[in-house]
Amino acid sequence: MVAKVPDIAPTVDILLGNLEDGVPVADKLAAREGLVHVGRTVDMGETQLWTRINSLDSPWALDDLITLVTEIGDQLEVIMIPKVEGPEDIHYADRLVSQLEARATLSRPILFHALLETARGVANVEAICGASPRMQGISLGPADLAANRGMKTTRVGGGHPDYAVIGDPPTGEDGTPDIHVDRARHQQDLWHYTTARMVDACVTHGILPFYGPFGDIADTVACEVQFRNAYLLGCVGAWSLHPKQIDVAKKVFSPRPEDVAQAQRVIDAMGDGTGAIMLDGKMEDDASVKQCHVVVELAKRLAARDPDLAASYGF
Amino acid sequence: MVAKVPDIAPTVDILLGNLEDGVPVADKLAAREGLVHVGRTVDMGETQLWTRINSLDSPWALDDLITLVTEIGDQLEVIMIPKVEGPEDIHYADRLVSQLEARATLSRPILFHALLETARGVANVEAICGASPRMQGISLGPADLAANRGMKTTRVGGGHPDYAVIGDPPTGEDGTPDIHVDRARHQQDLWHYTTARMVDACVTHGILPFYGPFGDIADTVACEVQFRNAYLLGCVGAWSLHPKQIDVAKKVFSPRPEDVAQAQRVIDAMGDGTGAIMLDGKMEDDASVKQCHVVVELAKRLAARDPDLAASYGF
Amino acid sequence: MVAKVPDIAPTVDILLGNLEDGVPVADKLAAREGLVHVGRTVDMGETQLWTRINSLDSPWALDDLITLVTEIGDQLEVIMIPKVEGPEDIHYADRLVSQLEARATLSRPILFHALLETARGVANVEAICGASPRMQGISLGPADLAANRGMKTTRVGGGHPDYAVIGDPPTGEDGTPDIHVDRARHQQDLWHYTTARMVDACVTHGILPFYGPFGDIADTVACEVQFRNAYLLGCVGAWSLHPKQIDVAKKVFSPRPEDVAQAQRVIDAMGDGTGAIMLDGKMEDDASVKQCHVVVELAKRLAARDPDLAASYGF
Amino acid sequence: MVAKVPDIAPTVDILLGNLEDGVPVADKLAAREGLVHVGRTVDMGETQLWTRINSLDSPWALDDLITLVTEIGDQLEVIMIPKVEGPEDIHYADRLVSQLEARATLSRPILFHALLETARGVANVEAICGASPRMQGISLGPADLAANRGMKTTRVGGGHPDYAVIGDPPTGEDGTPDIHVDRARHQQDLWHYTTARMVDACVTHGILPFYGPFGDIADTVACEVQFRNAYLLGCVGAWSLHPKQIDVAKKVFSPRPEDVAQAQRVIDAMGDGTGAIMLDGKMEDDASVKQCHVVVELAKRLAARDPDLAASYGF
Amino acid sequence: MVAKVPDIAPTVDILLGNLEDGVPVADKLAAREGLVHVGRTVDMGETQLWTRINSLDSPWALDDLITLVTEIGDQLEVIMIPKVEGPEDIHYADRLVSQLEARATLSRPILFHALLETARGVANVEAICGASPRMQGISLGPADLAANRGMKTTRVGGGHPDYAVIGDPPTGEDGTPDIHVDRARHQQDLWHYTTARMVDACVTHGILPFYGPFGDIADTVACEVQFRNAYLLGCVGAWSLHPKQIDVAKKVFSPRPEDVAQAQRVIDAMGDGTGAIMLDGKMEDDASVKQCHVVVELAKRLAARDPDLAASYGF
Amino acid sequence: MVAKVPDIAPTVDILLGNLEDGVPVADKLAAREGLVHVGRTVDMGETQLWTRINSLDSPWALDDLITLVTEIGDQLEVIMIPKVEGPEDIHYADRLVSQLEARATLSRPILFHALLETARGVANVEAICGASPRMQGISLGPADLAANRGMKTTRVGGGHPDYAVIGDPPTGEDGTPDIHVDRARHQQDLWHYTTARMVDACVTHGILPFYGPFGDIADTVACEVQFRNAYLLGCVGAWSLHPKQIDVAKKVFSPRPEDVAQAQRVIDAMGDGTGAIMLDGKMEDDASVKQCHVVVELAKRLAARDPDLAASYGF
Repeated sequence: MVAKVPDIAPTVDILLGNLEDGVPVADKLAAREGLVHVGRTVDMGETQLWTRINSLDSPWALDDLITLVTEIGDQLEVIMIPKVEGPEDIHYADRLVSQLEARATLSRPILFHALLETARGVANVEAICGASPRMQGISLGPADLAANRGMKTTRVGGGHPDYAVIGDPPTGEDGTPDIHVDRARHQQDLWHYTTARMVDACVTHGILPFYGPFGDIADTVACEVQFRNAYLLGCVGAWSLHPKQIDVAKKVFSPRPEDVAQAQRVIDAMGDGTGAIMLDGKMEDDASVKQCHVVVELAKRLAARDPDLAASYGF
Repeated sequence: MVAKVPDIAPTVDILLGNLEDGVPVADKLAAREGLVHVGRTVDMGETQLWTRINSLDSPWALDDLITLVTEIGDQLEVIMIPKVEGPEDIHYADRLVSQLEARATLSRPILFHALLETARGVANVEAICGASPRMQGISLGPADLAANRGMKTTRVGGGHPDYAVIGDPPTGEDGTPDIHVDRARHQQDLWHYTTARMVDACVTHGILPFYGPFGDIADTVACEVQFRNAYLLGCVGAWSLHPKQIDVAKKVFSPRPEDVAQAQRVIDAMGDGTGAIMLDGKMEDDASVKQCHVVVELAKRLAARDPDLAASYGF
Repeated sequence: MVAKVPDIAPTVDILLGNLEDGVPVADKLAAREGLVHVGRTVDMGETQLWTRINSLDSPWALDDLITLVTEIGDQLEVIMIPKVEGPEDIHYADRLVSQLEARATLSRPILFHALLETARGVANVEAICGASPRMQGISLGPADLAANRGMKTTRVGGGHPDYAVIGDPPTGEDGTPDIHVDRARHQQDLWHYTTARMVDACVTHGILPFYGPFGDIADTVACEVQFRNAYLLGCVGAWSLHPKQIDVAKKVFSPRPEDVAQAQRVIDAMGDGTGAIMLDGKMEDDASVKQCHVVVELAKRLAARDPDLAASYGF
Repeated sequence: MVAKVPDIAPTVDILLGNLEDGVPVADKLAAREGLVHVGRTVDMGETQLWTRINSLDSPWALDDLITLVTEIGDQLEVIMIPKVEGPEDIHYADRLVSQLEARATLSRPILFHALLETARGVANVEAICGASPRMQGISLGPADLAANRGMKTTRVGGGHPDYAVIGDPPTGEDGTPDIHVDRARHQQDLWHYTTARMVDACVTHGILPFYGPFGDIADTVACEVQFRNAYLLGCVGAWSLHPKQIDVAKKVFSPRPEDVAQAQRVIDAMGDGTGAIMLDGKMEDDASVKQCHVVVELAKRLAARDPDLAASYGF
Repeated sequence: MVAKVPDIAPTVDILLGNLEDGVPVADKLAAREGLVHVGRTVDMGETQLWTRINSLDSPWALDDLITLVTEIGDQLEVIMIPKVEGPEDIHYADRLVSQLEARATLSRPILFHALLETARGVANVEAICGASPRMQGISLGPADLAANRGMKTTRVGGGHPDYAVIGDPPTGEDGTPDIHVDRARHQQDLWHYTTARMVDACVTHGILPFYGPFGDIADTVACEVQFRNAYLLGCVGAWSLHPKQIDVAKKVFSPRPEDVAQAQRVIDAMGDGTGAIMLDGKMEDDASVKQCHVVVELAKRLAARDPDLAASYGF
Repeated sequence: MVAKVPDIAPTVDILLGNLEDGVPVADKLAAREGLVHVGRTVDMGETQLWTRINSLDSPWALDDLITLVTEIGDQLEVIMIPKVEGPEDIHYADRLVSQLEARATLSRPILFHALLETARGVANVEAICGASPRMQGISLGPADLAANRGMKTTRVGGGHPDYAVIGDPPTGEDGTPDIHVDRARHQQDLWHYTTARMVDACVTHGILPFYGPFGDIADTVACEVQFRNAYLLGCVGAWSLHPKQIDVAKKVFSPRPEDVAQAQRVIDAMGDGTGAIMLDGKMEDDASVKQCHVVVELAKRLAARDPDLAASYGF
């Protein structure tokens, strides 16, 4: 895998050196050494080098941090810390990394990205987000979180057909409800509370919320639905497990050209952005024009790095 | 607008002098002066005079408070404070208003109504509700909140077709799922977490939760659905942007006659309200009779001010 | 009722001596004495004896605790405390019970199960769960909670047809939306936020989350849907008001044989549980295998006490 | 002892029914019953009836509270709670007493006086003082506190000759210090920190600080010095163990006539109490005149109940 | 007084415009206007302009702040806030001043100096010191503090002969103590706890502790003793009420030449400041050399502005 | 120094491997290696091996911990952590040491002893003491603390002649005070507040308070006075810088035989330890007998290890 990195690096925005879940126990040391080798030998160009270390209560985390900060700290942008349970986890890593950075005479601080994978982490998410100026973002880890909560889904993210509400039964001729007739079932979003609270916690502290992985790689339709929910609720991205998902993510996390055009139309109609107007039967004012700016500014940031997208927006 | 107030005032319960969003920058001072003129000259009768001042971090808020409390503090019932982020905002306004009231020798305390319009406000909503005995209620401000969270909706409240879950794909003849077949999509409520947590925070501190505005004035059907969700989750009202919405709100926030009748039937059957009975195949006890009282008492309060409603309830 | 206990006790896991809601005021003392009689005279065998005392702010709670701990403290496993509002309620009961246990020279601590029945309780749920090592679990009490929140449902748990979102209106030929056409309505889960936050609070403190009662005893279909939602979100059980619901609960809170088999298949494929594989087009790794263990371990615990279930799982 | 109460009661301001230290284990129940007998049969006139119950972690405290509040709650003014360690002790007693008062249909709340007798109590003294509106005051318990802290004094309050600082040694003729020459030793106050912090905590919460007992009954001179220190630092009284100490306490805790006269002189010179003047070479202003009011108002309160004192002040 | 300012200003480091205690009620407005006149017309040169406003709960504080920041905010260095009780006082003043500064387009933040004059202030002193980056220092206000605590001294700062400990009585020939013999009395420092805790709070937050005024202007000897205690415990200055006290303060708050010389001698002997040596029979190491630097650096700072002092130190 | 250890070790209770103050920068690594050598090669017998590492914000602390725990963690009893400022310092060291212990497969936890050497540490001392179950004790570090506070003493512990109060001046014949007459000066204890609060914090959390070093090695008289103050206020020991001080410490921290005899006499007179008696004109009760037990139990613990002491006590 290490051998392929020089070819892959220039093609992606972020290269994640994963040392945690997915790496068998027997390969933990080799994975760490491989990452050091990459950090020392590969020219990353504009690509950021991130790593996901092992969880802080594992036997590997301390040496992951000592080794990586000491050996390739000048190459690492972000350390993903898995299974963060509370601010104390970030405080500990913060201080240890500070001392390792000082010893290695690094001048640029390495940032942290926390993975939200336990019930206790969700209960503490606001404090986690505010635990250090190193905090860059948080990602929802739906598989670990579901297991920790005792949710009875074995899917990695996405919905579950058993989570649903049903309509009332029809009333039969004799005035009693007939409960055995088929009724409308409405499937529900397992992740609404978690995602909404995570987004609020991130925005409160000025860091970035991400959705995590979607395990059913074959079902790109459901993946798109899941990613779009995250996008709509305020997430800025998601983790792709497969190239097929990269296309889905690119599509979802870029606003649609027609949405950008409509947002721009409202902005234009609002003049200096204060006051209130009626447009297409809808009231627009200082508040709703801010929503439009969210969409247009995201489109502009993405278009600056993607000429095709820029063209689609007419920028 | 000021000229019309003497005619409008007697027809509404609350007259809101808005100085914030919707008032262009150039009109800020005129709006404030207009409100002072109204407060000094118009006989408000039974109608309450409220104001929405500019946000505390704007260049106008301090003078809004100094002027309004000093000039028409004896007329103002409630000050709506927009974009409240935490209890410190209420503490500050509380103390400043206390000193202004003392200087103006006012004897009745002016109350506060906070607008929940930022992610940080939601994360702090319990503390905001409990920050002062002046707190009268909180309203959800969905447009500002969506923009602040980075939600990619440009609608002012209500749902969004992109927030949905889909069912599992059907399995084809060869046993593999066919992901491209059309599947049931179930749209989700963008505001469930926010509304539910806001209601709990308000009830915890004995103040009133309101839903805010619904921007698509033409779509009164969707407006009714949105208002009804808020009503069902515990809100006591919503903000109407247009006379068409006033009718919707009146309809939604008054219980239906058949619901009142059924609630009264349970209450009657429960005698002294303790113990447990079976009615129509449902268990009713000390707890469920309290739910029925919520409905009947609301109906009685509303009926006391609205003869038509009273008639519809048979009171 | 007391007379029937010797026959019932051997047939259930838990016998709950209820002193609170459902017991008329006039019967409060008799109910307490009846429970003392049961505790002193009935051979409970393997069956646990629990009690639900009256709420701590009622005129009966102090004497409920003094009497029950003093008289039958050696028989009581768990005291359910209704309408818990914050950790202070648990602290008070904890200390009082400690002193009563000491006076009665009991050597085994009596545990607590809190009922979540108020908005303030939900706002404090994390602190309630962590308030004492006696805490064994929490149950959602949907009827009291709905009444306390001012939710306008009179149902004891379950959904409500009025809580729904609707799709966008179709656009007519002239390009304007036609709001009066019938649109898809998608009913929503009233309890998503409450259940999800309660589960997180429990898991954070290592105690057990339960859904509470479902009042519409006739509608076993809706009961099953409600119980299944709780099961899926992480609850370990629910309260049955009627024998018909016991069968529903047993069915819902035991994983389906096919789910157990599939979970076992993933576990088997994952070897030592580390690393990552593809199975049926889905990625499985250290995290998702934990989800599978949740299901399989639950199946094993249940099968150990139920030969039919064991057979269905092929254990 | 109980037999003598009718004679003693009219001669004192407060009659303290002590159930704790000083009562041998074998007499605990008799002491409690004796106090109930007194409360029920003795006409207390203007004299307040207080009790010091056993400590909350003793086997007697719960029954002390249940019995006393139930039987003579209408006679009890203040319950002294010994060995209070933190606000949780007050919270527990507060709630238990509230429920006992309600059951006994008492309409006047019984107050609490906490004894500061442990290191943890001192570390939490601010929170203890603010733990309940029942809090009436705090007394320093120097013997228990010294033992709990591991202070190596076996005296009950007062100073200790071993706590002293010494001056520098004189320098001999050869320029080196001669450490063996006798030097000035200056004894120090063992209780300065404790008393000062306790006074601040009490004043912060509007309750009364007391010094506690002085054990060396024969040494009335040292007793007076100790009481005067407490008086000067802000305490309002002390506990007398013997009639000889009552005279000392009366003398110390009443300001001297010459101090009252001088304070009045400053007050007179200050006119409306604002501004600044020079008097006897000292600056007096709005602040120092408040100090004078402390002395004069105390004198007036005491004089109102003591004609001799009034005469000595010339009131 | 205002007329004299142009002459006085160049001769002092700080000119304090006092609006609070010492200013009679009738002169409050004139004092404020006088200060505005000074701020607008007098060339302060290197001299800092400070003001002590009226206390925040007085009828003047709000207008003091509005007027002074608006009119002469560009001239004011520090606002002394009297009778600060907790961090909420600083938070309020901080925010109000921020908005007034913004409105007045001031670019340099005005600093705060809090007066510690209440028991509650002492109990909250750490939080007060850390309440805002505007916090520049704290001064002890002994007169108000004594009155608020109910200390029975009417002196403005300094000691009191009644606060003392006495030695044990001698034992007579018959082996019993003779308590009536004259014994050594050792007067105690009334302010030890208060000053020590205040210094720790200031140093914790990087701000400056000051002792306050000494009222007995004639007794310069006692004034010197009091100031020296403050100096020794860590204060950086004191407030002089009279020119005679200025000389005392200058003398006390400048280290003695012999102390500076000895400190320098230790520094020189310690080389790079690490390790340990013996000097004059005393151990000196990394820690004690820091103490010496405290003295020498203070001497250097003072000498830089005072040639006589520089000469006395031999700099 | 390392060479002498085998001879010294058997003669002391604790051998402290100091890496911090007193070790020049150039010798830091050699000192650490020397300590490793000692830990690996010297048979410590009953003697405990402690170390004082460099402060956590120094460039050496991280490697001190990694090296010592990894190399000689099985030999180390206690790590002294200098300049602890708050609980976060202990949390960090606790977690790092936990992971190092796990990696080194140590089964006995290494304890911590914190040095109180900064104003911020004193302000946080209660939280520091309770920050970890590893906390074994705290020592006052008077030199660093004085420097950090800006106290103008250059002495390492002990008193200072400049900290004193003076009596009032005599009044001359003309009735005016004569301030120039010599008056009684009473030197004060610089460390009263610090020591008293530290003792309370330690006892609150069940750990041991120590006084620190006394720098004037020649002045054993003043050293004894300082140590005795600490002993009296509750400290259990002090740090000796020189063999002469070891004798002083042994003498001071063992109770005097006559004090032990008197304490035993009170205990004997009190029978079962409850109730109250008069002895030599002093009241003794449940509380004062606890003080006597403090002295007698200390004597017994010390006598168990020192036959001479046992003989002097008559045990």
